[in-house]
Amino acid sequence: MLLNKQISISYFLDLIKWDLLAIAIYAIIAGSLDHYGLLRRVTIPLAILSLVATIVSLLLAFRTSQSYERWWEARLIWGAIVNDSRTLIRQVKTFLPEETASFAQRQIIWCYALSESLRGLPFSEKVKAYIAPFNSESRNWPNFLLNQHGEALAAATELNPNRQVQIDATLARLCDAMGKCERIKKTVFPKSYSLLIHFLIYVLMTILPFGLEDRSQWMEIVIVFVVPVLFIAIERTAIVMQDPFENRPTDTPMTAISQTIEVNLLEMIGEPVPVQEVQEESYYLM
Amino acid sequence: MLLNKQISISYFLDLIKWDLLAIAIYAIIAGSLDHYGLLRRVTIPLAILSLVATIVSLLLAFRTSQSYERWWEARLIWGAIVNDSRTLIRQVKTFLPEETASFAQRQIIWCYALSESLRGLPFSEKVKAYIAPFNSESRNWPNFLLNQHGEALAAATELNPNRQVQIDATLARLCDAMGKCERIKKTVFPKSYSLLIHFLIYVLMTILPFGLEDRSQWMEIVIVFVVPVLFIAIERTAIVMQDPFENRPTDTPMTAISQTIEVNLLEMIGEPVPVQEVQEESYYLM
Amino acid sequence: MLLNKQISISYFLDLIKWDLLAIAIYAIIAGSLDHYGLLRRVTIPLAILSLVATIVSLLLAFRTSQSYERWWEARLIWGAIVNDSRTLIRQVKTFLPEETASFAQRQIIWCYALSESLRGLPFSEKVKAYIAPFNSESRNWPNFLLNQHGEALAAATELNPNRQVQIDATLARLCDAMGKCERIKKTVFPKSYSLLIHFLIYVLMTILPFGLEDRSQWMEIVIVFVVPVLFIAIERTAIVMQDPFENRPTDTPMTAISQTIEVNLLEMIGEPVPVQEVQEESYYLM
Amino acid sequence: MLLNKQISISYFLDLIKWDLLAIAIYAIIAGSLDHYGLLRRVTIPLAILSLVATIVSLLLAFRTSQSYERWWEARLIWGAIVNDSRTLIRQVKTFLPEETASFAQRQIIWCYALSESLRGLPFSEKVKAYIAPFNSESRNWPNFLLNQHGEALAAATELNPNRQVQIDATLARLCDAMGKCERIKKTVFPKSYSLLIHFLIYVLMTILPFGLEDRSQWMEIVIVFVVPVLFIAIERTAIVMQDPFENRPTDTPMTAISQTIEVNLLEMIGEPVPVQEVQEESYYLM
Amino acid sequence: MLLNKQISISYFLDLIKWDLLAIAIYAIIAGSLDHYGLLRRVTIPLAILSLVATIVSLLLAFRTSQSYERWWEARLIWGAIVNDSRTLIRQVKTFLPEETASFAQRQIIWCYALSESLRGLPFSEKVKAYIAPFNSESRNWPNFLLNQHGEALAAATELNPNRQVQIDATLARLCDAMGKCERIKKTVFPKSYSLLIHFLIYVLMTILPFGLEDRSQWMEIVIVFVVPVLFIAIERTAIVMQDPFENRPTDTPMTAISQTIEVNLLEMIGEPVPVQEVQEESYYLM
Repeated sequence: MLLNKQISISYFLDLIKWDLLAIAIYAIIAGSLDHYGLLRRVTIPLAILSLVATIVSLLLAFRTSQSYERWWEARLIWGAIVNDSRTLIRQVKTFLPEETASFAQRQIIWCYALSESLRGLPFSEKVKAYIAPFNSESRNWPNFLLNQHGEALAAATELNPNRQVQIDATLARLCDAMGKCERIKKTVFPKSYSLLIHFLIYVLMTILPFGLEDRSQWMEIVIVFVVPVLFIAIERTAIVMQDPFENRPTDTPMTAISQTIEVNLLEMIGEPVPVQEVQEESYYLM
Repeated sequence: MLLNKQISISYFLDLIKWDLLAIAIYAIIAGSLDHYGLLRRVTIPLAILSLVATIVSLLLAFRTSQSYERWWEARLIWGAIVNDSRTLIRQVKTFLPEETASFAQRQIIWCYALSESLRGLPFSEKVKAYIAPFNSESRNWPNFLLNQHGEALAAATELNPNRQVQIDATLARLCDAMGKCERIKKTVFPKSYSLLIHFLIYVLMTILPFGLEDRSQWMEIVIVFVVPVLFIAIERTAIVMQDPFENRPTDTPMTAISQTIEVNLLEMIGEPVPVQEVQEESYYLM
Repeated sequence: MLLNKQISISYFLDLIKWDLLAIAIYAIIAGSLDHYGLLRRVTIPLAILSLVATIVSLLLAFRTSQSYERWWEARLIWGAIVNDSRTLIRQVKTFLPEETASFAQRQIIWCYALSESLRGLPFSEKVKAYIAPFNSESRNWPNFLLNQHGEALAAATELNPNRQVQIDATLARLCDAMGKCERIKKTVFPKSYSLLIHFLIYVLMTILPFGLEDRSQWMEIVIVFVVPVLFIAIERTAIVMQDPFENRPTDTPMTAISQTIEVNLLEMIGEPVPVQEVQEESYYLM
Repeated sequence: MLLNKQISISYFLDLIKWDLLAIAIYAIIAGSLDHYGLLRRVTIPLAILSLVATIVSLLLAFRTSQSYERWWEARLIWGAIVNDSRTLIRQVKTFLPEETASFAQRQIIWCYALSESLRGLPFSEKVKAYIAPFNSESRNWPNFLLNQHGEALAAATELNPNRQVQIDATLARLCDAMGKCERIKKTVFPKSYSLLIHFLIYVLMTILPFGLEDRSQWMEIVIVFVVPVLFIAIERTAIVMQDPFENRPTDTPMTAISQTIEVNLLEMIGEPVPVQEVQEESYYLM
Repeated sequence: MLLNKQISISYFLDLIKWDLLAIAIYAIIAGSLDHYGLLRRVTIPLAILSLVATIVSLLLAFRTSQSYERWWEARLIWGAIVNDSRTLIRQVKTFLPEETASFAQRQIIWCYALSESLRGLPFSEKVKAYIAPFNSESRNWPNFLLNQHGEALAAATELNPNRQVQIDATLARLCDAMGKCERIKKTVFPKSYSLLIHFLIYVLMTILPFGLEDRSQWMEIVIVFVVPVLFIAIERTAIVMQDPFENRPTDTPMTAISQTIEVNLLEMIGEPVPVQEVQEESYYLM
C-alpha cells in the first residue's frame, strides 16, 4: 500500500528502458543524417504520416480499452469474492450454525491460497499450516478447499435440502470467481495485435524524420524521440494493466482484499481480529 | 438538491484554479518570447501538433467514458438498493409478517449507515441511536446490520425453508450492492493513465506556441491559454465523476435515495411518514 | 402512433429555435465585420479549428451514445415488463388459478399507473376507478399495487411455498423494472458534461469566422451558420433522447405497450378484449 | 442458405439505386457547372469539408455499431431459444416423462410460429395444422402456445412443486426470448438520428465540388460520385442490419434455426427425424 | 502450446500472400506509370485521401473490436465450461455420491466431444471408445451426452427434488454454453461489412498514387505498397480472430482446457491423473 510515486515512475521507466534507448539512438542518427547526402531527398508527405498515426491511435485506443477491461474485470471478480465470502458465512450462520467457524476459517485460507497461486508464489505460512494435514498432492489447492466446503455441506445430513442448495449456490459462485481468475491469468492478449501495434509504432518512428521539413536539426531529433516514446508509453501501460495477477505494483490488490475478508469473517464469527501483520506488498491500492 | 448553477460553476473553477494559473503564466511568457530571439526560429510542424492532440483526445475520450461508467454504476447500485429494499420488506410482509416492522427499521438504518460510511462521515443521530444498544465495536456497521437481518431470519425457526431461502437471496443481493459500493470507493483509476493524460496535456501546451505562425501576438496568447484549458476542463470533469462517494456536489445522491427508501418502507408497514427534515446536502439531484 | 413527419420536424425545429436565432445573428455580424477594420487581421490557424472540432466531436459521440443507451435501456425495461406480466399471469394460472382474474386486472392497472406516474400525468379514469376503493394516500401507487400482489400471495395460505416463492420472484423482477424506470427518470445527465459540450460548440462558432479565409463574404456567413447548427442539432437530439419518460414524441411508447399487455392478459384469462379506445398519444412508435 | 454472392450484391445495389441515381446526377451537373460562371468563384475550405466528414463518420460509426448490436442481439435471442428448447425437453423428460412427446411437439411448433409471426408471414402448413383444433382467435399465437405449456404443467398435479417450478423457470426464459424478439421488431431506430445522418451525407455531397480545386473536370465528377456513395453504402448496410426479422436476406436465419431445434428435439424423444424439406428461404446463413 | 514466433508469423504471411502480391504489382505499375503520360495529370486532393482513410479506419476499428469480442466470448464460454464442470461434479458428490465417477467420466468426454465437433474433426479415440456402446446415430453427440446426464438424474428417484433441481440447473448452464459455442461457430460476420471494408481498402490503394506528389518514384512505390498492406494486416487479423473454432493457431485452446478439466475432475473423484499424452495441437496458449 505504499503509494510512493517515485518508486512507481522509476518502475515504469525501467519497463520501457530498452525502447527508450532504441528510439533515442534512431532519433539521433536519423535526425543527423537526414540533412545530408542521399537521405535529404527522401521525403514522405505529412498526410501519410497522419494516416499511419491515425491507425496506430485507433489500435492503441482499442488495446487500452481492452486491457482496462481485463484489469477492471479482475477487480470485479475479487469484489464478488468479498461479497460471496460474506454471504457464505452469513448463510452458514443462519442455516448451519455449528459449522460457522470451520467454514469461515476455510474460506479465509481459500482467499489467500487463491491469490498466492494466481501470482505463482509459494504458499504463505498460514496457508501451508492449514493444508498440511490433508496429506494430499492437489494440483489446484483452491479447488480442493472449495470441495472441502462441499463435503462439509454433504456431511450435514440433517440440513434441510432447500438450505443446503442455497449454500451450494454460493459455492458455485465462488467456483465461478476462481475459474474467471484462472481465465484472465491464462489468456494472453492476442499475440497478433500485440505484434501489429508494436510494429506499427516502429514504422511510424521510421518514417517520422522523412516527414519533417529539414529546418532545425535538434528540433527534429527531439520530435523523433518524443512522439514514438509517447506511443510506447501508452502501449506499455496497457501491457502492464492487462495482466493483473503477476505480482507487480499494478496488480489487483489481492492480499489486501484477502485481509479485509479475514477481518470481516472473524468479526462475523465473533473471534478476535488479529493485529494486522506488517503489509508486505507494495502494490498500489487500486 | 439545490441546483444552483452559480455555485457549481464556481466550485468547478475552484477545482482547476492552479492549472488555470500555470497555463496562463506559460501562455503569456511563451506567447511573448516566441516572437523574439532564439525561440523565433523554433517551429514545430502543425501535423505533429495534431498528432499529439489526437492521442490526447482519444485518451480523454477513454477516460471520460470510464469515469462516466463508474458514476453510472454507482447510480445503478443505489437503484438496486431501492428495489431490493422494497422487495425485502414485501417478502418479509408476505412470509414473516410479525417481523416486518423490525426488518423495515433495520433496513432504513442500513441505507443511512452505508451512505455515511462510504462518505467517511460520522454517523447521523438516527444511526447512532439505532446501533448504540449493540455495544459492539464493528469495523463495518452496514455488514453488521445485514448480519442482524440474517440472525432474525435464522431465529424464525417456524419459517418454511423455501421462504427463508428466498428472503436470504434478497439479503445476498443487498450484500452484493454493499460490496460493489466498497469496490468503487476503494479502487482508484489506474495511476499510470492519470499521470500519462495529465502529462500529455502539458506536452501539448508546451509545443503549442511553436506550432503557431508568428502573426498576432495576443491571438497566440489567447490560443495557448484556451486550448489546454479545454482539455484540462474535460480531464477534471472526468476526475470528479469517477469517485461518486466523496461528499462532493457530483456524488450519487445517497441521502436523498435513503430518504425515498425510508418513505416507501414506512408506507409499506403502515407507519406515519415523518415530515422531511431540512435537506442538508446540496448535491445535484443526479 | 401518428408517424407524421411534418409534425416531428417542426417539433424539432421548435426545440432549437433560440439556438438557431443566436447562431444566425452571430454569423451575419461576424461574417460581415470580419472583412473590415481590425477584425480583418485576426486569424486563427485552421489546425486549431480542427482541434476544437475534434474535441467537440468526440464529446458529442460520447454524449450521443450515452443518451441512446438511456433510451434503449428504457425500452428494455418496458420490454421486460411485457415479459414479466405475461409470465406472472401464466404462473398464477398454473399455481393459483382462482386468483388469475384479480392478478391480471391489478397487473394491467399497474402498467397504466406506472406509465402515468413516470410522465407526471394525472391518473387516467381506469386507474382512478381501480385505486379509489383503497382510500389510501400512497405517494407511490405502482409500489402500492405491487404490494397488493404480495398480500394476495400471502393470503393464499394453501399455496405450496415453492410455487409461492416462484411467483414472488416474478414480483421482484417487476419491482426491479419499476425502480429502474424511476432511476432513469430521476437521474439527470451530468450537468458538467452538458455545460461543457454546449460551451464548446459556442467556442467553435466564435472562432469559426476567423479561421476562414476572407474570400467570399456570403459563403462565410453560410458556413458560420451551418456548421454550428449541425453540432447543435446532434446535441439537441441527444438531449431529447436521454429522458424517455417526459410526455414527448420521442418517449418510450408506454401507453401503447400497456395496451398490448392489456390485450395479452385479457386473452390469457379468457375475457373479451375491449375495442381499443381512440389512441390519444401521438408519440412515435419507437 | 444459398450463399449466392451475385444475388446479394445485386440485392444491395437495388436497395441504393435511387440514391445512386441522385448522386450521379448531382455529380455530373455540379462537376460540370463548377468550372464556369458564377459557381467558379464559390469555394469552401477543405478543412470545413473534413470537419463535416468527421461528424458524419462518427455518427455513422455510432449507427453501424448500434445496428450491429441489434442484429447480434437477435442472434443471441435465437441462440437462447435453441438452448432453452433443449433444456425444456431434457427437464420434461427427467421430471415428467409421460408428457415429453407433447411438449416437444408444441415447442417445435412454437419456434416456427414465432419466426413466422415475427416476419409477418402467414403460418406454414405445419403450424396451421397444429393450431387448427384450438378453435381460438388468439392475436398472439406464440404466447398462446406457451400458455398451453403452462396449462400442461398445471395439469400435472402429481408433479413435485420443486420440479414444476424448475420447468416453469425455463418457460419464463422462453417467454423473455419471445418478448425480446417483439421488442426488436417493434422498436424503430430513433427517427431523428436516421434523418440527421441521411441529411448530413447530402450536405457533404453538396459542398464537395466546391471544396475541390478546379483542375480536372472528370476527376471531380468521379470524386463527387464515389465519396457520397461510400457513405450511403455504409448507412444502408446499417439500416438493413438493424431490422433482422423482415423477411430479407440479412435476417436472423430463424427457419434454419427452427429446423435445427426440430431435429434436436425429435432425436431427444426418439422419433425419426424427417427428411428435410427443400429449403425455401435464401437468406445468408449468418 | 508451442509459442513458436517464427511459425506464427509465417502462418500469418501465408494468409495474406495473395493480397501482398496484388498490392505489390499495383504499387509497381501505378508508381511507375504515374510519372508519365496521361496519368501524370491525374491528381486527387490529399484531403479526399484522408477522408477515405478515416472511413476505412473507423470501420476497421469497429470490425477489430467486434471480432475481438467474439474471440473473447468464446474464451468466456470455455471458462464457464471449466467452472460448471467443477461445480457439477462437486454437486453430484455432495448430493448423489454414488454417481460421481460416472458423471465425471461423462463430463470429461463431453468436453472433448464438444471441442472436436466444433472444430469439425473426427472424434478422438477416447471419445469414440466412450460413445461406441450407445449404438446411436446422433447428429449432435454433445447434446446426446448431456441428455445422458439428465437421464442419470431422472433415474436417481431417491434424490431429493431440491437437490435434483440444483444439479439440473448446472446442466442447463452447460447446455447454454454448448449452444453459445454453436452460435459463434455458425454465425458469420455480416457479409456486407466484410465486403465493404475489403472493397474500401482497395479503393484507398487505387487512389493512393494519385494523391502523392510526383517527386520520388521509388518512395511512391514503397508507400503505395506499405499503407494498404497495413490495413490488410489489420483486417486479416480480425478475420482470423472472429472464428475461434476453426482448428487454427488462434483458436480457443479447447483441447488444453479439456485436459485441465480432466485433471481437475479426476482429482475430485480421487482417480489417478493420467500422464499427459504428448500435446498434439500447436495452438497459441491464448
